[in-house]
Parts: sequence; C-alpha cells; structure tokens
Amino acid sequence: MSTSPPDLAPDIAARLKRTPDGLVPAIVQQHDTGEVLMLAWMDDEALRRTLATRAATYWSRSRGEYWVKGATSGNTQRVVSVALDCDGDTLLVGVDQSGAACHTGARTCFDEDRLL
Amino acid sequence: MSTSPPDLAPDIAARLKRTPDGLVPAIVQQHDTGEVLMLAWMDDEALRRTLATRAATYWSRSRGEYWVKGATSGNTQRVVSVALDCDGDTLLVGVDQSGAACHTGARTCFDEDRLL
Repeated sequence: MSTSPPDLAPDIAARLKRTPDGLVPAIVQQHDTGEVLMLAWMDDEALRRTLATRAATYWSRSRGEYWVKGATSGNTQRVVSVALDCDGDTLLVGVDQSGAACHTGARTCFDEDRLL
Repeated sequence: MSTSPPDLAPDIAARLKRTPDGLVPAIVQQHDTGEVLMLAWMDDEALRRTLATRAATYWSRSRGEYWVKGATSGNTQRVVSVALDCDGDTLLVGVDQSGAACHTGARTCFDEDRLL
C-alpha cells in the first residue's frame, strides 16, 4: 500500500507556468463582494490540496512550508472557485473569508497603504 | 539641464519589496465592479509612470520593456487607485478598463479556464 499523496491532475499541471521556485501567484478574492483580500503563492501540491479540500492552502515562502489559511488564526478561507489565467501563470481564488484576511487584523491586506 | 526622469518618491520606494528581478506583482481590478482583470508586473519606474500619468504602465517580462496598457490595442486602463499591501510586496491597481483586458479578447484574463 502506497502512502504517497496523489499528484495534481496532470491536465492542470501541464497548463501551469511556474516561477523558477515552482510557484504560481494566487490572487485571493472574496467571492461575493469582489474585495481583493491578499496575494499568496501555490505550488502544485498547495493547489491540489486547495482543490481537494476547499480549504485555501498556500506555500509560505518565508517559512518554507504549506499553510492552511486560518489554521492558527481561525480566519479560514472556504474556496468557492479557482481559475487559471490566459497565460497559465496566475490563479484567481474566490473564497468566503471568515474574519480578517490580513495578519494585521485588517479585512484585506490592501486597506492601509494607499499610494493613490 | 538634466534629462534624467524623476525617481519614484523615496518614501514609496523604501516600502517596496521587490523580486530578485526588481519587480512587484500588480493585481489589476475594475474599480467599480470588483472584477479582477489581470496580473501584471511593475518595477519602480513603471509605478512612477503609473502614478504620474494615471495610464497603467507595466514591465513586460517577456519583451523586456515598459508597456502602457492599451497603447497598441486601444484597451486602455485609466488608473483610479493604487494600494500597497501589508508586506510591501504586492500592488492593487484599481482601473477603469476600456474594452477587453485580456489579449485573447476576453473581458478578463481569468474568464476561460475554471479549475473549480
């Protein structure tokens, strides 16, 4: 009996264009209001877990580990939709955000530093 | 008389965290509907031009040149707002998009490849 996790579906994996680090940026948007909440990063396995569990799962570049959004804060993201862009190099993740998306406690990561 | 262009405002430049290539991802959103249109990339000079002209200006990684959105297609983006995220490593650009945002002719770059 194998304990290896399943791979990301090959037809999806074939369309992804990754950074040299194997990552794709994921734009995270509140599905009903349209608010852009944050930008995170996924590798193939984070995308596989996200699609399989509908709990938004990212790769933390700073910590070097998978990260289920809200696992420690409780501010989870239930995934409603995932789309790949025309170039295959960016994901758009529609979520239902519980509480604050930003680690600062703000609703979104873009609320506090307006340049224009 | 100097012909050097002005630099990006130092207080903004000091807050930006760039990739090793000197770039920051820019999420581009239709300002009133909330549609996420595309992801593009800016360096300091693209951001400076965008803030100064309100014509969305990006760095094309594939062509290695600045790119005023819509300069050839006519599908311009008038910039309404720009925000920097909590980490200083992502921009959110609110625009008024004329016509299609995507080079395929689709309204957004995320319209045609739903994974979920």
